[in-house]
Amino acid sequence: MNNIQRLQVKKYISDLLTIHDAEAVFITALPDIRWASGFSGSNGLLLVKPDAVHFITDGRYREQAQDEVKGATIHVPGYALMANLAESGLLEDVTSVAFQADQVTVAELESWKPHFPNVTWQPVENMLTRQVASKSADEIQRIRAAQAITDAVFEHLLGFIQPGQREVEVAAEIVYQHLQRGAARMSFDPIVAGGAHGALPHKRPTDRVLRQGDMVVLDFGCVLHGYASDMTRTIALGEPGEQARAVYSVVLAAQERAIDAVQAGLSTQALDGMARDAITAAGYGDYFNHGLGHGIGLQTHEWPRISYHVDDELPEGAVVTIEPGIYLPEQFGVRIEDMVVVRANGCENLTASPKSLIVL
Amino acid sequence: MNNIQRLQVKKYISDLLTIHDAEAVFITALPDIRWASGFSGSNGLLLVKPDAVHFITDGRYREQAQDEVKGATIHVPGYALMANLAESGLLEDVTSVAFQADQVTVAELESWKPHFPNVTWQPVENMLTRQVASKSADEIQRIRAAQAITDAVFEHLLGFIQPGQREVEVAAEIVYQHLQRGAARMSFDPIVAGGAHGALPHKRPTDRVLRQGDMVVLDFGCVLHGYASDMTRTIALGEPGEQARAVYSVVLAAQERAIDAVQAGLSTQALDGMARDAITAAGYGDYFNHGLGHGIGLQTHEWPRISYHVDDELPEGAVVTIEPGIYLPEQFGVRIEDMVVVRANGCENLTASPKSLIVL
Repeated sequence: MNNIQRLQVKKYISDLLTIHDAEAVFITALPDIRWASGFSGSNGLLLVKPDAVHFITDGRYREQAQDEVKGATIHVPGYALMANLAESGLLEDVTSVAFQADQVTVAELESWKPHFPNVTWQPVENMLTRQVASKSADEIQRIRAAQAITDAVFEHLLGFIQPGQREVEVAAEIVYQHLQRGAARMSFDPIVAGGAHGALPHKRPTDRVLRQGDMVVLDFGCVLHGYASDMTRTIALGEPGEQARAVYSVVLAAQERAIDAVQAGLSTQALDGMARDAITAAGYGDYFNHGLGHGIGLQTHEWPRISYHVDDELPEGAVVTIEPGIYLPEQFGVRIEDMVVVRANGCENLTASPKSLIVL
Repeated sequence: MNNIQRLQVKKYISDLLTIHDAEAVFITALPDIRWASGFSGSNGLLLVKPDAVHFITDGRYREQAQDEVKGATIHVPGYALMANLAESGLLEDVTSVAFQADQVTVAELESWKPHFPNVTWQPVENMLTRQVASKSADEIQRIRAAQAITDAVFEHLLGFIQPGQREVEVAAEIVYQHLQRGAARMSFDPIVAGGAHGALPHKRPTDRVLRQGDMVVLDFGCVLHGYASDMTRTIALGEPGEQARAVYSVVLAAQERAIDAVQAGLSTQALDGMARDAITAAGYGDYFNHGLGHGIGLQTHEWPRISYHVDDELPEGAVVTIEPGIYLPEQFGVRIEDMVVVRANGCENLTASPKSLIVL
């Protein structure tokens, strides 16, 4: 994130006090701390006050905090963060603190109370959700770089996958190739689902051997510099049957129709409906049994969900997946997934891997 | 878990009502749901009542719940679990429910309340912590099997690691070899820390190239059938210096002293002290700056911590890590870690990899 963007974030962080009518705000969810301050460790607290933003962590992270945290004063009081925070006087005279009610457990909140007997605690849900969703140019670049690794691994796989391999073997290769290319880790366990296994949208890889004639669902992504990629492709091992080709065409057309429609302000429910209607019109509506996509960034699944269950407006700058599928029980599944950046008048596709049916 | 053990668990589950003086208990933390019922999916709720235990999940997990859940009646009411639970009548006439206060967010609890207006919610911390810590024979067998993969990968590494390799390259090999041998995933991102990087206990692998003369800290483990392994070995690339040999001997002696002392009922603080005192007596007390170990099982880090900060009694059947280290800033680090089962009169070491200093 460049300095101008960091300042915008800081401006919003300060606005939190006004928005929630509090004298101070606690930010305690690690992805939100990372988003707001740059800190990538596993223990810390951002305390927002009218005059300054404070970052508090323990001794393990002294150097890392100094390297990473921007826009906040760093405090390293010791392991007992709340006890030390109380002693520090930083919350003296503060009588109301807004906190992330959807991130803090009932027991945590209770454990804070004795340290700050004069504070009224204001529960806030989705405190930073919309701000985190709208990505900066630097954040989009990181997602693009993660996806570039994922695209390269897919290209590698096209020369690797063969009938006779077990699903788990292909999954191991996917992980290995990502790590070899610099990924910090996978963004989720890869899905390699051949034949009837592909009809279960989240089937874990098994010892099942890939066979000539299988449709194979491949769903994977990685984390690079904190940001996630996520892609699905479905390939055919040997010439697929007529129905598999037909289903593939329906899914691809539905996916492209949805991608063509993406723009800031569009209803997520309407967007889901565009892909769903195309699949329903082709007679497969009952076999697309999950939502169309989800936001992605520091976490693999972020707001907004693109689904028939809930409705939101697509925010400009959000990166979302578009991943319709058709799953024919006991037969096969097809899913095709890209990541796109929501722009004012359309979208930018971050996924470069080809989408026409590949027959190996 | 065999049927007798499953029944013992169920007996304890029913005891929860008496222990917490409640008419019903919610178990909502996924590892605890898995421990108590066998369910390994990502959405569900165990509801304990005097007459029966109920498991509630959504449609994605219908088949998986039928395959996995033992000792509970399965309900698949739809996505809105709490709304559907309220409609089901299962909580009719129930006026007090104990819940996992250290696992449920403030917002979640608030979202439950409108569905059950007559219920008083009783916050309980560490509801299943001690029961989960004491492993059954079947659970220990799963951890042993996970560690057998980790031991095999270490043996492979001894023929693989060479000066000139980057830390990230060795980490990728570690992951690949685990997955090839059947691990579902890593239990945490592997640590490969050469030379001065080894002096930072949790340093992530980097592009640093391993060099002749490096001490290399290797810390890794995997998940197999839901259960985790965790091991650390420190090896030398080429003949190490005198100080490195001396430090290695001190860490190994401290680790073996602690392992010899492990038995059910021992104070965790005292156990930490045994290793710590040995390291301090050798003059390196300031350079062992973390706790001695932690419980492990369905999660990589479980209760109890073995540390100077907190004190508990080691429970029989717990699997814990014993992992002292010495970290000389800007120079090198040495850590040696095994997993042991706490027995009535000693312990059983689950880690088979050799511990005398290996020079490659």
